[in-house]
Amino acid sequence: GIDMKRKSSFSLLDHIKRPMDGADENPDQKEKMEKLWKLMETYEPNDPESIQKSFARHLEYSLACTRFNFTMQDAYRAAGLVLRDRLLESLNDTNAYYRKMDVKRGYYLSAEYLIGRHMQNAIANLDLEQPFKEAFHALGMQLEDLFHEEVDPALGNGGLGRLAACFLDSMATLSLPCWGYGIRYSYGMFKQDIQNGRQVEMPDFWIGDGCPFEIPRPDITYPVRLYGEVQEGLNAQGEWCLNWVGGDIVQAMAYDNPIPGFDTYNTNNLRLWRACPTKEFDLDQYSAANFTDAVEARRKAEDLSAVLYPNDASYEGRELRLRQQYFFVSASLQDLLREFIKRPNYKWSELPEKVAVQMNDTHPTIAVAEFMRLLVDVMHVPWDEAWELTTKCLNYTNHTVMPEALEKWPVEMMTRMLPRHVQIIGELNLRWINGLVAKYGDGPIIAALSIFEEGDVKKIRMGNLAIMGSNKVNGVAALHTEIIKKETFPDFYKYCCDTGAPDKIVNMTNGVTPRRWVHCANPALSAIFTKYLGSHEWLTDMTKLKGMLKFKEDPKLHAEWMEMKKTAKKKLAGFLKETLDLEIDQDALIDIQIKRIHEYKRQFMNCLYVIHRYQQLKKMSPAEREKVQKRVVLIGGKAASAYVNAKLIIKLINNVGKVINNDPDTGKLLKLAFVPNYRVSAAEVLIPASDISEHISTAGTEASGTSNMKFVMNGGLIVGTMDGANIEIREECGEDTMFIFGCLEHEVAGIAAKAKEGHYPIDSRLQAVFQAIRNGEFSKGEPEAHAEFCSLVDKLCNTHGAGTWDGDRYLVVHDFPSFVDAQAKVDATYADKAKWCKLSIQAASSMAKFSTDRTISEYADVIWGVKPAPRPMEM
Amino acid sequence: GIDMKRKSSFSLLDHIKRPMDGADENPDQKEKMEKLWKLMETYEPNDPESIQKSFARHLEYSLACTRFNFTMQDAYRAAGLVLRDRLLESLNDTNAYYRKMDVKRGYYLSAEYLIGRHMQNAIANLDLEQPFKEAFHALGMQLEDLFHEEVDPALGNGGLGRLAACFLDSMATLSLPCWGYGIRYSYGMFKQDIQNGRQVEMPDFWIGDGCPFEIPRPDITYPVRLYGEVQEGLNAQGEWCLNWVGGDIVQAMAYDNPIPGFDTYNTNNLRLWRACPTKEFDLDQYSAANFTDAVEARRKAEDLSAVLYPNDASYEGRELRLRQQYFFVSASLQDLLREFIKRPNYKWSELPEKVAVQMNDTHPTIAVAEFMRLLVDVMHVPWDEAWELTTKCLNYTNHTVMPEALEKWPVEMMTRMLPRHVQIIGELNLRWINGLVAKYGDGPIIAALSIFEEGDVKKIRMGNLAIMGSNKVNGVAALHTEIIKKETFPDFYKYCCDTGAPDKIVNMTNGVTPRRWVHCANPALSAIFTKYLGSHEWLTDMTKLKGMLKFKEDPKLHAEWMEMKKTAKKKLAGFLKETLDLEIDQDALIDIQIKRIHEYKRQFMNCLYVIHRYQQLKKMSPAEREKVQKRVVLIGGKAASAYVNAKLIIKLINNVGKVINNDPDTGKLLKLAFVPNYRVSAAEVLIPASDISEHISTAGTEASGTSNMKFVMNGGLIVGTMDGANIEIREECGEDTMFIFGCLEHEVAGIAAKAKEGHYPIDSRLQAVFQAIRNGEFSKGEPEAHAEFCSLVDKLCNTHGAGTWDGDRYLVVHDFPSFVDAQAKVDATYADKAKWCKLSIQAASSMAKFSTDRTISEYADVIWGVKPAPRPMEM
Ligand SMILES: Cc1ncc(COP(=O)(O)O)c(C=O)c1O
Ligand SMILES: Cc1ncc(COP(=O)(O)O)c(C=O)c1O
Repeated sequence: GIDMKRKSSFSLLDHIKRPMDGADENPDQKEKMEKLWKLMETYEPNDPESIQKSFARHLEYSLACTRFNFTMQDAYRAAGLVLRDRLLESLNDTNAYYRKMDVKRGYYLSAEYLIGRHMQNAIANLDLEQPFKEAFHALGMQLEDLFHEEVDPALGNGGLGRLAACFLDSMATLSLPCWGYGIRYSYGMFKQDIQNGRQVEMPDFWIGDGCPFEIPRPDITYPVRLYGEVQEGLNAQGEWCLNWVGGDIVQAMAYDNPIPGFDTYNTNNLRLWRACPTKEFDLDQYSAANFTDAVEARRKAEDLSAVLYPNDASYEGRELRLRQQYFFVSASLQDLLREFIKRPNYKWSELPEKVAVQMNDTHPTIAVAEFMRLLVDVMHVPWDEAWELTTKCLNYTNHTVMPEALEKWPVEMMTRMLPRHVQIIGELNLRWINGLVAKYGDGPIIAALSIFEEGDVKKIRMGNLAIMGSNKVNGVAALHTEIIKKETFPDFYKYCCDTGAPDKIVNMTNGVTPRRWVHCANPALSAIFTKYLGSHEWLTDMTKLKGMLKFKEDPKLHAEWMEMKKTAKKKLAGFLKETLDLEIDQDALIDIQIKRIHEYKRQFMNCLYVIHRYQQLKKMSPAEREKVQKRVVLIGGKAASAYVNAKLIIKLINNVGKVINNDPDTGKLLKLAFVPNYRVSAAEVLIPASDISEHISTAGTEASGTSNMKFVMNGGLIVGTMDGANIEIREECGEDTMFIFGCLEHEVAGIAAKAKEGHYPIDSRLQAVFQAIRNGEFSKGEPEAHAEFCSLVDKLCNTHGAGTWDGDRYLVVHDFPSFVDAQAKVDATYADKAKWCKLSIQAASSMAKFSTDRTISEYADVIWGVKPAPRPMEM
Repeated sequence: GIDMKRKSSFSLLDHIKRPMDGADENPDQKEKMEKLWKLMETYEPNDPESIQKSFARHLEYSLACTRFNFTMQDAYRAAGLVLRDRLLESLNDTNAYYRKMDVKRGYYLSAEYLIGRHMQNAIANLDLEQPFKEAFHALGMQLEDLFHEEVDPALGNGGLGRLAACFLDSMATLSLPCWGYGIRYSYGMFKQDIQNGRQVEMPDFWIGDGCPFEIPRPDITYPVRLYGEVQEGLNAQGEWCLNWVGGDIVQAMAYDNPIPGFDTYNTNNLRLWRACPTKEFDLDQYSAANFTDAVEARRKAEDLSAVLYPNDASYEGRELRLRQQYFFVSASLQDLLREFIKRPNYKWSELPEKVAVQMNDTHPTIAVAEFMRLLVDVMHVPWDEAWELTTKCLNYTNHTVMPEALEKWPVEMMTRMLPRHVQIIGELNLRWINGLVAKYGDGPIIAALSIFEEGDVKKIRMGNLAIMGSNKVNGVAALHTEIIKKETFPDFYKYCCDTGAPDKIVNMTNGVTPRRWVHCANPALSAIFTKYLGSHEWLTDMTKLKGMLKFKEDPKLHAEWMEMKKTAKKKLAGFLKETLDLEIDQDALIDIQIKRIHEYKRQFMNCLYVIHRYQQLKKMSPAEREKVQKRVVLIGGKAASAYVNAKLIIKLINNVGKVINNDPDTGKLLKLAFVPNYRVSAAEVLIPASDISEHISTAGTEASGTSNMKFVMNGGLIVGTMDGANIEIREECGEDTMFIFGCLEHEVAGIAAKAKEGHYPIDSRLQAVFQAIRNGEFSKGEPEAHAEFCSLVDKLCNTHGAGTWDGDRYLVVHDFPSFVDAQAKVDATYADKAKWCKLSIQAASSMAKFSTDRTISEYADVIWGVKPAPRPMEM
């Protein structure tokens, strides 16, 4: 095997003395505690024997299994607890070190984390693969079998949540003192089941059996108030102040999820909040109610963190959503401010030197008002100073270019729920508008920049609040950041430029962590890189992969590379057999599109292309068919539960698959399958196996995309539009590595305008596809499905409506011909195995920019001013 | 110190090889598991050093505290986990041993367990007091301080629940293979706060911070169905059968609470069920609903085990109460039947040789129908055989003589909730009634014995169902059992006698465990017994205490005995100072009444007596007062939240206390205080300190009482009526040890009848007390309280209503004069210290009958046919 030669490895920690950072926190205890400290002075050893002992102990004492009767699920949980012990030591010691060094800290606030399974990742990051393998092998178990027992904690909808998870991995790996904050939903993202081709959403009670990687912290709780009213009063200093009183108080209890870095001894924390009933009582309110009602009311508190809302939440759900957002933001800010004021002789003016907060999308942006409230009302910082601190500490990431997706809350609703915050926002807006009027006079720019949106229902625009309250605002890919400046917030950008701060809006292109997405998901590829480069350093410095380029024509590498793909395809084949009972030809080109199902992502276009390809095959003679490249098209993703068209597209894909896969003429040459319940652990199996993947959103709609990066890092090539991060990936990897098609972002408006004038031709090949659908060739005798499929097609054919909700909003018709051409080019290129292999190596080796290590380093430098603080280890 | 010389002590287990019982359960695993077994082959060592190590590990790894920063609460939890490890080993090995020996098992089904704090009890029962003391002393901690951190798990209302807890202790101590089953309420019995003299109920979210003594068992779950409908169908064998389908399915998840025995290596289990959402789905029903609604519905499942209902639950609460009862009964019976059929080559006919079930009160009596359903519908046992098995396995304890307290459920409600059970009950009743009519012809006995009660709302009488479905029925004290036969179920008793089974109804006088109530609560007394008797054997054989009688006049013992009382009073004084800021004179006679507040328990009469005593004192000259015995009267207990009069009595006691305690004439001589939030841990402080205690229920109303036993075991004497177990205590201890007063049970009806005729005189001393109340002397200027107090008095003065709800139902007026006399006799006797001391020793040493060891031995012999199976330990 290859010696990983990591500098920092937990396997080196056996019997190493732990540092005493923090020992003087309670000087009076010191004397009598010395005996205890002695007992805890070394780290848990990590040799296979010690791992086995620790495993056995957890099996019996923590899980209450008998030695003679436990399941693989029990074994997984016990192994998880073995890791938890190690993670906890490291988490505790890392935090003590950060405190000792009095470092500036970054806090990432996100309503979603699509963290994926912990176990394999933790073992890899701690560098304990070898001893764990040995330990369990001797007990007759395979590590992989344990990994499979873990359920994905799915506390996010899609890309935004997965990005947050990759960010955490990079923060820890870079030894940055950064924590994540979020919500511990009892029910995560729904599980997707496919029944007769249609999506059925099933509740995901992921926490059911307990997660061994999380640490409940009953000692860390904060009260969070909702509703109630604001009263005038005097504070402890006898000064006039406003007090928010009454309403309901919910307790936020911390659940910590240690995030170990790779090749470092640092372990950071993802702190998720769970809503619990308070322990304190408002006795007056209380004794009035009857006992069981009072208990009921308290139990309702727990609803707050019960469910992750699918991102289509309807109005009724939305009030709860705002409550969730405020709940986790308030608890997080209270927690980080408590950490700040724990510092001896703290001064408020130092806050921006010690604290940077990142708001991930608009979900946590109530933080602007809450930060002000905590500083002004609770900490008694004067208003102007508080505002300066707020705008120096907070930062905001925009994730969407669609103005209708920026959250806005009815003033009426927020006034009921957060009366003090509406006052604060009103005061902030007043001062802001006064300044603007002084500068620009009264005009449309004032209305555009106001936090309040007038109209039938007066609303608070969280996007505007976020920008106003932030130090930096960023987009997530180059094109996206440009669109933000020019289209989403043009007036803000103008204001920034006019006030000499054009760099308030910056670009931070997204990334992915190579530890999970290459090293863990594709061990064969990781081994190739390490072998050819002579070290594992590429895993923490992806620019090292450039060193692979000199081998890109090396037949030996080609052979190993193709073997690597084969291994991945074999694993995928096993997965498809198990989940779908589908057999695939492992020599086929594997073509994958996995992501949330959305019209803008154009899974529909992909499906139309597959029908077209099927029609072509059907027209051919058997001899002609022989020459066609075999292809397996896999589409997967969840549709928001209320998103009718997205769910229809799933049904169409399934029906088309049924027809094609069972047609003896084509079944061997073309397969189409819908992969159910797409999630992180499925992505880890799918991505390494792809030859091509589809990232085909209409130009200007996908902010960045991150699965595109994962595919290319694994040697897959992209069929894509000039959208999101595709553009930058192409720049890095070379134009020849990407099959680009479709209109450009700046062309979209013109195309729609021309369509309105009647100029929106439908390609004859697409006409034929539409005809087949209308003929019911994929309706399988289901009248309801038939009508639905026709309605999808009818909408595309309303050429006058192209570019709008009434017609082909996402220009499928326009882009279809060039999409067909791009696919033809794929087949042609793939026919030349050596060329394909070269392109694959070239692309995979050019992806340094898309490591979240690069992304996070930029955030740390440009936005947060947070520096690495690697924990030294005295051996 | 005294060497306890226990035969079985966990301190002897260090490095002892554990038995391999169960190792061949999975023969295929054997080979590869041997390595693992090797790692777990010895017990956790129990020397102080090992305890410290284990403590340190739990502090950091289980609780995630740092070495430098933990609270006493954390230390308590870590110490709890140290014990949990030991308890788990023993629980697992005990159960494997029971399986190996294929013993008959007893299962105690109770909706309530008032288990009290675990820690001190566990340490004592495992015989680890010495090493634990040393281990924590060296870490600068006192064990007692850890004990105080534990919150009482209060999963019961009062005596019935505490009895169940004492039973568990004796079952384990007697090495009987018996488990308890119940409900893991998230909210236990409310906490009682006193605000301006009135009770305020506060939710008790006891599980908030997690209890280290419970073991969640996500692997042990059973589905429990509610609602739905019954369909005809064919079973797997193609036979006609009825299937209960649809409705809601809730998952019951086990939480195990190890119950260690004293001086044995056996540890039994109290398995409590928590309601969780199911993992399975009824997809048809499911896809119809929208996603968030579906999640909501599943979350509601958790409501089932959320709250322990105070025993005054109103009708709305009652449907939930029946759901709770069915929920835990179904899970428990499924669990015990699974254990039965795990036995190789099981035959249904063997069931009564292997299983005995005790139903504690009517709460679990739906078990009769559920047992039938599981046998007939699920296990396909023929009806007649199933009924024979049911009536051989089940047994029922009646706890109340008041017919209105026997549960009855509307047929309509039960048909909706448990349609199959109503069918089964209907069929059972049909056969039963047919038999009865054949025997007696149609007549009133038929209506009385029917399970169904006719009327506006047709009801199912759970008491009748229980008796019909039981092998044995028992009362809980001699008098109570007689009342059951003659008044509560006279027709059943007649039927039993007529069918030659008069001993179907038996008496099992209640008891209490001397481990918790003497050894742990009163270590000084325990030490005296052990010293004088030369061994600790009295703790498992209370008849040994008779050996103390020969010392009852020994001045040396008297001195030690009085010292013991002083120690207990000092502790009580500290407790009162802390909770009430009340100073008491430790030379005063301590007079305690602690129990649920109820009119039949007559705390009101006690309060009226205190007023009378106060009036007497006020009338005296200072010189006369000098001669009066000082007294501190303590009253404590919770009132059901909807029980208006009980809550009023609390208010009266508090107001009277305020007046008396602050009156300079009497303050030193007489104190009255209401002890808030009475609970097991408070009982442990109060009981040892008492000189006298009040057990003064109207004759025939208190089934047994158990606190009376606890007081006497601690050397307190009783002021009591001829009711419940008082009668038997007096028999055992001697008439001179009890201050008896009041009418006898058989006189009650006559007194009420005479009252109706206008003959119900009110003693002039009581008149004076009434007058003072009416004058507002205790109203403290609160008009509302004044009116309420007067209404209480008015009711007593409605002499024509005596014995009914409209008047003095519980004959306070009738018994008052003799109560005053009894109290005078107390003072007189107490004046002679030597005599008092002798009586105290005599009583405490004569309580063998009231050890639950005796009670449980009788249950095991007479009812269950379960034999001790002590686990041998090869040293
Ligand atoms: C489960 C899951 N959902 C969504 C995404 C984001 O995919 P995309 O960037 O294609 O939108 C990922 C990325 O890997 C993922 O793993
Ligand atoms: C908390 C608690 N409640 C109720 C009881 C039962 O008391 P009694 O037998 O006086 O009704 C006890 C007995 O000790 C107890 O500890």
